[in-house]
Amino acid sequence: MLQDRFVEVQDLPRHAADPDTEVTIAGWVETTRVHARVAFLVVRDGTGLVQCVLPRGEVDEATWELGTGDLPQESTVEVRGRPKADARAPGGVELLITGLTLVHRAETYPIQPKEHGVEFLMDHRHLWLRSSQQRAGLRVRAEVMQGIHDFFHDRGFTRIDTPILTGAIGESAGTLFSTEYFDETAYLAQTGQLYVEAACPAFRKVYCFGPTFRAEKSKTRRHLTEFWMVEPEVAFADSDDNMRLQEEMVSYVVARALDRCAEELKVLERDTSGLEKVAPPFPRMSYTEAVEFLQSKGSEIEWGRDLGGADETVLAAESELPTFIYNYPKAAKAFYMKENPDDPRTVLCNDLLAPEGYGEIIGGSQREDDFHRLQTRIREEGLPEEPYQWYLDLRRYGSFPHSGFGLGIERTVAWITGRPHVREMIPFPRLMNRLNP
Amino acid sequence: MLQDRFVEVQDLPRHAADPDTEVTIAGWVETTRVHARVAFLVVRDGTGLVQCVLPRGEVDEATWELGTGDLPQESTVEVRGRPKADARAPGGVELLITGLTLVHRAETYPIQPKEHGVEFLMDHRHLWLRSSQQRAGLRVRAEVMQGIHDFFHDRGFTRIDTPILTGAIGESAGTLFSTEYFDETAYLAQTGQLYVEAACPAFRKVYCFGPTFRAEKSKTRRHLTEFWMVEPEVAFADSDDNMRLQEEMVSYVVARALDRCAEELKVLERDTSGLEKVAPPFPRMSYTEAVEFLQSKGSEIEWGRDLGGADETVLAAESELPTFIYNYPKAAKAFYMKENPDDPRTVLCNDLLAPEGYGEIIGGSQREDDFHRLQTRIREEGLPEEPYQWYLDLRRYGSFPHSGFGLGIERTVAWITGRPHVREMIPFPRLMNRLNP
Repeated sequence: MLQDRFVEVQDLPRHAADPDTEVTIAGWVETTRVHARVAFLVVRDGTGLVQCVLPRGEVDEATWELGTGDLPQESTVEVRGRPKADARAPGGVELLITGLTLVHRAETYPIQPKEHGVEFLMDHRHLWLRSSQQRAGLRVRAEVMQGIHDFFHDRGFTRIDTPILTGAIGESAGTLFSTEYFDETAYLAQTGQLYVEAACPAFRKVYCFGPTFRAEKSKTRRHLTEFWMVEPEVAFADSDDNMRLQEEMVSYVVARALDRCAEELKVLERDTSGLEKVAPPFPRMSYTEAVEFLQSKGSEIEWGRDLGGADETVLAAESELPTFIYNYPKAAKAFYMKENPDDPRTVLCNDLLAPEGYGEIIGGSQREDDFHRLQTRIREEGLPEEPYQWYLDLRRYGSFPHSGFGLGIERTVAWITGRPHVREMIPFPRLMNRLNP
Repeated sequence: MLQDRFVEVQDLPRHAADPDTEVTIAGWVETTRVHARVAFLVVRDGTGLVQCVLPRGEVDEATWELGTGDLPQESTVEVRGRPKADARAPGGVELLITGLTLVHRAETYPIQPKEHGVEFLMDHRHLWLRSSQQRAGLRVRAEVMQGIHDFFHDRGFTRIDTPILTGAIGESAGTLFSTEYFDETAYLAQTGQLYVEAACPAFRKVYCFGPTFRAEKSKTRRHLTEFWMVEPEVAFADSDDNMRLQEEMVSYVVARALDRCAEELKVLERDTSGLEKVAPPFPRMSYTEAVEFLQSKGSEIEWGRDLGGADETVLAAESELPTFIYNYPKAAKAFYMKENPDDPRTVLCNDLLAPEGYGEIIGGSQREDDFHRLQTRIREEGLPEEPYQWYLDLRRYGSFPHSGFGLGIERTVAWITGRPHVREMIPFPRLMNRLNP
């Protein structure tokens, strides 16, 4: 057992109480500073950073030579020593070195503490992950994702994994990746929604949570070709229930990140005062009200057109909370959304706009549950009917009111962490011009 | 708010205490039985089933007519009534109907309580999900997956989502799906392993958990073209640590399913006596011992050949626990596995075989951390070197001992639920001849 030989840096404070304790850590050298009588090594082991103190004269000459000689950044070391509480040290503890072993001497590390271009950093993404802000951002991502699983599991939702490879065609055929599938063609799913709808009569409250794909030729800071999305779907829930679930989930996730990722948000220099106010209810504005508001601000938008990113920024700026815009024109939205009985030009749907200019993080709707209206919409959109027969079956055999939504993880984490670009919010981003590493 | 009007069937016992309580449920009619003076409707709402009692004379004639008339299976209804504790009833409660509303009259439901062929059922997978055994199996799957997330989260692992679309080539190029990616070709990942290895120096203990793809022309009961896999990776862990983590995780997941899915395992008629014994340590047999054992049983296997499914069944039959087979011949395993210093013909790796003939559920290994040996192996395998430069970087900049494994979800759930075929263990299976629905 190799693992039993090492203590993790995050556990060092526990060991610092007894002055005679000796422990061994294993990790990577971040920096070294050498003075005449003492040297300092900052070591990262993946659970934290610790400053290791090497006092000349108190260790043998070979250990001093090793610690102060050719020890490039990111070299792997085992450090034996006595943990000592020190309020000034990061993590509250220092390690007084008694022994040092070189596991692997690194070549000259390409990422230096200077301004690198983003393409250079992305080319070295497999190494860039080790940098403190990247670590912090991805820790928030991981906590947000676990939080989402917990939120739904605790509320009795059944997780339903929906297929990536699909013969049916999702939202817009122009932005699909396709692959040869034995004798057929398969498309990479843009959404699991149609499938989670099918699972509702079995489990009532369900969700899927996986990667989705868009072959969009966009190079904005909000777009990835591969991103993760959580999509809950609830039987016997209407559009109002749906918005309530959204504000509860988003508030839960933000509170959880604030609670459990305080250190990470500090590393990212995130001003959390806005996030601390996130709680239900969120402000709601109908699409029609939104258009009137935008026009009053001088916009030339006309009723019927979808909102653009600039419009969203203006609307979201009205509140420190995320803002719902609901009931868009039918023509601007997907075929499966339920016609609004009070205004059949619109559908029962909503977007949720994050504050601070982070834009749309959720799209949701009540689903069309009337067989004939749904079939008509499929025809109006010019979609092929045969692949949607199984979906229409859900309106043949016990149709039911139901609603759901999709939340994009990277946009949500970008907002929570205050980072400008979604590409840093996923470990290995895929962009139009980026498929490696 | 539509949702607030309904009580969930799983909560009916809570409401049954007060004899005057009236509640409304919404769900789907599974069966109806009509007698002269009373009728019974079994309604499924996705959280449970409840028998609803319709007493003629105590309801108005329209309600009696509706409940006893043309009400096909899977029709959607709202049932108002008084919950009444009844030890004989499934769920311990009956609902005395006081009002009945038809939400949607179903067409004649294609799945009937008779033997359908599996192709017919798979063609109707979107409806078959509603059947009790399918519901039970997928509930176990969902609990197992949440259990895995909790297991790793509680132990300080950071979740790292690895890309599906990748320019690098994984294990064996012959079984990859590919897609046009703007001006390049992308392959659908067969594993996230190489990427989680890159995340180890940032987070020490990491895991990925997502769909993976194999374009294999296999039609066995153990193969899917799209399946879910969890892949942890741990820095400063050797092959022994790795096996210990595997037996801990598998034991945790089995215990959790037994604890939280007792009802579902009963529906599946699972004999759980074997599962109840699953606890560390699991028996371990080296590959060399395994070959000798198989030869002693009359097999013609020779040292150096990989084990086949039939060999695995013979080996696993020796124990009620899952069985480790470790340190296979180098030639039978992937290039990234670490050479065994005690016997360089072999690598430090293991498979984990489930009992009762369920076969391999885990493959794991310590990874080759020596730059030159790894480069040599890449060349020996005839793999293109350029796409692996970033992976080799992990051995240039602070190489470190590390180990990990991959556990296939559908095989694991098939074993836990005692179902013969992995295709029922995923909501929408993808097989060589199955891309729909």
